[in-house]
Amino acid sequence: MKVGERHYRTIWPTRDGRAVEIIDQTKLPHAFETARLETVEDAATAIRDMWVRGAPLIGATGAYGLALAMATDASDGNLSVAYDLLYATRPTAVDLRWGLRRVRDALRDLPPGARAEAALAEAATICEDSVATCAAIGDHGLPLIAALAERKGGEAVNILTHCNAGWLATVDWGTATAPIYKAHDAGIPVHVWVDETRPRNQGAALTAWELGRHGVPHTVIVDNAGGHLMQRGLVDMVITGTDRTTAAGDVCNKIGTYLKALAAHDNGLPFYVGLPHSTIDWELEDGMAIPIEQRAESEVAEIAGRTVDGRIERVRLLPEGSSARNDAFDVTPARLVTGLITERGVCEASRAGLLSLYPERGERRAG
Amino acid sequence: MKVGERHYRTIWPTRDGRAVEIIDQTKLPHAFETARLETVEDAATAIRDMWVRGAPLIGATGAYGLALAMATDASDGNLSVAYDLLYATRPTAVDLRWGLRRVRDALRDLPPGARAEAALAEAATICEDSVATCAAIGDHGLPLIAALAERKGGEAVNILTHCNAGWLATVDWGTATAPIYKAHDAGIPVHVWVDETRPRNQGAALTAWELGRHGVPHTVIVDNAGGHLMQRGLVDMVITGTDRTTAAGDVCNKIGTYLKALAAHDNGLPFYVGLPHSTIDWELEDGMAIPIEQRAESEVAEIAGRTVDGRIERVRLLPEGSSARNDAFDVTPARLVTGLITERGVCEASRAGLLSLYPERGERRAG
Repeated sequence: MKVGERHYRTIWPTRDGRAVEIIDQTKLPHAFETARLETVEDAATAIRDMWVRGAPLIGATGAYGLALAMATDASDGNLSVAYDLLYATRPTAVDLRWGLRRVRDALRDLPPGARAEAALAEAATICEDSVATCAAIGDHGLPLIAALAERKGGEAVNILTHCNAGWLATVDWGTATAPIYKAHDAGIPVHVWVDETRPRNQGAALTAWELGRHGVPHTVIVDNAGGHLMQRGLVDMVITGTDRTTAAGDVCNKIGTYLKALAAHDNGLPFYVGLPHSTIDWELEDGMAIPIEQRAESEVAEIAGRTVDGRIERVRLLPEGSSARNDAFDVTPARLVTGLITERGVCEASRAGLLSLYPERGERRAG
Repeated sequence: MKVGERHYRTIWPTRDGRAVEIIDQTKLPHAFETARLETVEDAATAIRDMWVRGAPLIGATGAYGLALAMATDASDGNLSVAYDLLYATRPTAVDLRWGLRRVRDALRDLPPGARAEAALAEAATICEDSVATCAAIGDHGLPLIAALAERKGGEAVNILTHCNAGWLATVDWGTATAPIYKAHDAGIPVHVWVDETRPRNQGAALTAWELGRHGVPHTVIVDNAGGHLMQRGLVDMVITGTDRTTAAGDVCNKIGTYLKALAAHDNGLPFYVGLPHSTIDWELEDGMAIPIEQRAESEVAEIAGRTVDGRIERVRLLPEGSSARNDAFDVTPARLVTGLITERGVCEASRAGLLSLYPERGERRAG
């Protein structure tokens, strides 16, 4: 999406194909800096130290990392070493493994001399696929916003979102944000309520940043405020992303999503989730069976920001002796989800709904 | 309550009656400092600059401020000047006006020579009344916790609270915290989930501090986490305070309370509100008619904390160009409130429930 006047993706190869550039997301929202990755070690560092984050983007960076490795040494041995190095950076990221495997499988039967170019091409295809998927989510979500806009007769449609399921988490468009960008680009007036999303503040730091750079009107609110704004008629719909969606339509997403879904339900407001098919866990029905990652207490106890004189400083918020608990995700039961917006269309959050879009999954099960 | 080994109130006169001491709450949670107020100007500063906060404590400080004024000049003229000075510090605080009026009315017919002592006595009575009220809320709430403790057979009762309705907001005991302190002091094992309560972080900064000093086990969580903890069976009950309760039992309290009430309801958990009768607005039925204060954007955009080298530093969290909205309160409809815990007992959150405890209000209405 746009940063100022220029269109950016989160990752792109340089013209000479010798390096890959990324947006260093650790610097956001206070500085916009790109970083040049020239070696597989650079790519590993970028993933490990979270210069890039978000499942699709991690997968793409891993794929380009293999391509960088092949440019120096395209032997079977180096392919294996590079694969292991990249895989170890964030071993629980499903998309990383998927991206690495896809490149490795594409190279396996090629002679070393053809591998560097083929790896670059495969990484580029992975990126294009991701962009197409997100754009399709946007195209399917757009009519939902357009319908609300029509009902509001020209007034801005107020959309609440939680965390960052934006283009910064993907290669372009984002998932939850794709319908919003599509609507904005189509001239439909939208305004986004951005939950700050404690403890890591991905809403305030990343979603607000990317919406601002693309010119989408938005206002940051604390995570406590959404229910109140809904009660007062200031929210027309909610769109979030998801980290995992069960086959029955339960949605596991950033902690706090469940509370917004409850409030949307209590106020009769639509609650949509944007997702690529890759986040659907066809093996699992009950979202409450998903184990929830507990992260470092320091993410709750401390926070970083920019001082008046421009330094980035980390400060402690808790009293001496008080500890914190930090669950990263929660589960929104399907009964609270109005619909799932995927690259194939919009469906009910249920097995039947998902199978209407992915009928091949039903056949497989029957067989 | 206790700070280390010593019992503190939030305000107390010095032995010689010439000054009043308070806890400087602007320094919490990173430093515990008391401040000595010697003049009415000192008292005005303490209220205006929020060294003291919380309705009952503001009322008490105003009352003592008038007493300090009378010690230097007990004339009618100075009584009027001091009243106006103190009243102007936080003109929307109902308890401040009430405390000031109570002292002024007690002095009016007294000769100047008797006023200083009478004012001190009246301020002390206001404090004792507040402590007795809060203690009674605690006594009525205690059996609710005891019943849960019995059901849990010795395991700690997990109580979630939002914001600071603790002893720091009153003279002692607090409102929401009174049943918790009473239970803890009675040897009932309790553990408190403390919502950090963005944007001003009164939970993380004040509630965690006071629970920690008194030795009550607690854990700070982000405001997003409560619903998830309830889903996973880690919360047994919720107790919050309230800024205004309507005659029909709607509860206006710190922004985010409504979301926790929704989650408690969705998980079949009791949601109680602790309140003194002074917060009941007998003139108003519908909580949605309460106008909600919008506070400074900077409270959302910036946050203060302690750096590793001990400095208190304020940092900006939002990107350049992003703005924020800051509603201070929300309204929890009576249908989501299990019960109101007042100084007269526990009742249903409804007009009938409130009238069962305050029958004189029904008679007045009938008459």
